[in-house]
Amino acid sequence: MSSNRLGMQTISFSKQPRLFSFHTLVGPLEGKGPFGQDFHEILPNDHLGQKTPEKTERLMLELAIQKTLDQQNVSPQDLQFYIAGDLLNQITTSALSAGSLGVPFLGIYGACSTFCEALGLGAVLIQGDMAQQVLIGTASHYQTAERQFRYPLELNIQHSQTNHHTVTGAAAAILGQRDFGPRLTLATFGTIVDKGLKDSGDMGSAMAPAAFATLKQHLTDTGQKIEDYDIVLTGDLGSQGSKMLKILAERENMTGLDRFQDGGGLIYGPGQGGGAGGSGSACVAVMTLGYLASQIESGKAKRVLVIATGALLSPLTVLQGETIPCIAHAIALEA
Amino acid sequence: MSSNRLGMQTISFSKQPRLFSFHTLVGPLEGKGPFGQDFHEILPNDHLGQKTPEKTERLMLELAIQKTLDQQNVSPQDLQFYIAGDLLNQITTSALSAGSLGVPFLGIYGACSTFCEALGLGAVLIQGDMAQQVLIGTASHYQTAERQFRYPLELNIQHSQTNHHTVTGAAAAILGQRDFGPRLTLATFGTIVDKGLKDSGDMGSAMAPAAFATLKQHLTDTGQKIEDYDIVLTGDLGSQGSKMLKILAERENMTGLDRFQDGGGLIYGPGQGGGAGGSGSACVAVMTLGYLASQIESGKAKRVLVIATGALLSPLTVLQGETIPCIAHAIALEA
Repeated sequence: MSSNRLGMQTISFSKQPRLFSFHTLVGPLEGKGPFGQDFHEILPNDHLGQKTPEKTERLMLELAIQKTLDQQNVSPQDLQFYIAGDLLNQITTSALSAGSLGVPFLGIYGACSTFCEALGLGAVLIQGDMAQQVLIGTASHYQTAERQFRYPLELNIQHSQTNHHTVTGAAAAILGQRDFGPRLTLATFGTIVDKGLKDSGDMGSAMAPAAFATLKQHLTDTGQKIEDYDIVLTGDLGSQGSKMLKILAERENMTGLDRFQDGGGLIYGPGQGGGAGGSGSACVAVMTLGYLASQIESGKAKRVLVIATGALLSPLTVLQGETIPCIAHAIALEA
Repeated sequence: MSSNRLGMQTISFSKQPRLFSFHTLVGPLEGKGPFGQDFHEILPNDHLGQKTPEKTERLMLELAIQKTLDQQNVSPQDLQFYIAGDLLNQITTSALSAGSLGVPFLGIYGACSTFCEALGLGAVLIQGDMAQQVLIGTASHYQTAERQFRYPLELNIQHSQTNHHTVTGAAAAILGQRDFGPRLTLATFGTIVDKGLKDSGDMGSAMAPAAFATLKQHLTDTGQKIEDYDIVLTGDLGSQGSKMLKILAERENMTGLDRFQDGGGLIYGPGQGGGAGGSGSACVAVMTLGYLASQIESGKAKRVLVIATGALLSPLTVLQGETIPCIAHAIALEA
């Protein structure tokens, strides 16, 4: 087995690259939620004066990138890669946001798992002496996701209890070798887990087995137990998927389940209309770089595991009767 | 600068991982083209008994993977990563093809540049001691691309001279350290190049400046000239984009332009109705693993540079008046 690998699916980063600059911004609804104070910026409205929500989503990502660069006086020339992805067809938010940077661009697609895929790949490039600083970014917007994946808002379709609410938000971060910021020490890249579910209105249930598979593999590969982490943050299982994850873990007699938190399940408060919870590629990103990073900074958490889940369906595969292939990628962050 | 980097955008792979197993399959039209004899398999029809072209596209990729594995008796457990992408919304062909493998999956999106992005990332993982064997794959299908990006075939829309014809095909390859197969020695990851073009019916013109930018950077980073390669295969510029690439190179007094070949421009013969040329994420993949690999194997070419270009637009961004962000990633293959 090669030297940077642990077990079957995990990579260990001895260089411990750090998230030394990052910025999260969220829409007004997310800003009013229970974690509003943890995000770096709350937008005054969900359009920012743009003509379409797609243009707003792109602007949000560009703003998050600009603030991430400015904060530590990093110029695009100091970056060797920009890794990004989003939910929109052909990841156009990411590609358009890369246009003005002039940084080698790696477009990825992992749906709501994008954030951990991007960070894991960024750490791979740094660990492998192929980059010194890597920018990652992602964004999602309630309105762009609704019209692409579901129904036009104007139809005012009734939502069911298992439906998620796509987070309006954007996040960017720079990974590199500095003497501050959370360290990225481990990444476990997930396999596709497909239990045959077909209900695109209940993605939490579809994704929970993928989250569990990656968690279990991560613990096996690294010889750890859940209690070695102060928080295990999944995203975005929501209320339905979180219940299922707990059942799966209990079945295998795992302990430490009080460490489980779910980004999607937490981001909206009761009465906010968030359905089963938040989703979208920005959800786990803003919860990690907003909430988790502040827990680490304040000393309330020393080691956290982020497991970002993705449901890799499309409206067309649903119509054609395909099941929902799901994935989860995990990264460990340490103080 | 870190040890595996050359210049601004290039990574040098001292381990020289080899493409030791690969398989290409194409549709009947591509099989009748001038390079038909170079592809490993020509499908008897373009549906393979499937109910929808999306299901056919997925089956094609699965077949290419299976034959790539079987050929060298590699089992999925011997693979550390599967990297794939395609043109379809949410890269569902790739995600569904990964479902039965059980290999850690990295979904990427680079449109027609996917093949080089996948191979470059695969080599990164091997060079960085994070994998020993990486599977990559991609596929495209004329009918799935037409209905997603253009018009339903039933409308029988007249094509213009600058329109490309999406290649029906699939390709898979395993990269690893063996004592046979073309060596992957260099990768140059491109930046987004956007010259303000908006005509989605002429992607060759939009992508040519991206191909040129990556070529120029590759030569600068590595201290080489075009003549150091026997063939520089771009894909998919087609007739229009190839003309433009030549003009851009002549303007900077580059020599060796007789080494330029374009996968999209070559794959269809006159009278086959291929328009300005082939495109789709399978195009440069089948031309590289079919045609180029056989040139290397027969000793007709010793060093080749593959520059895969991608137009990162979507039908929605076109409707919203956005310009077309383009990218090109390059890899060098040596005997």
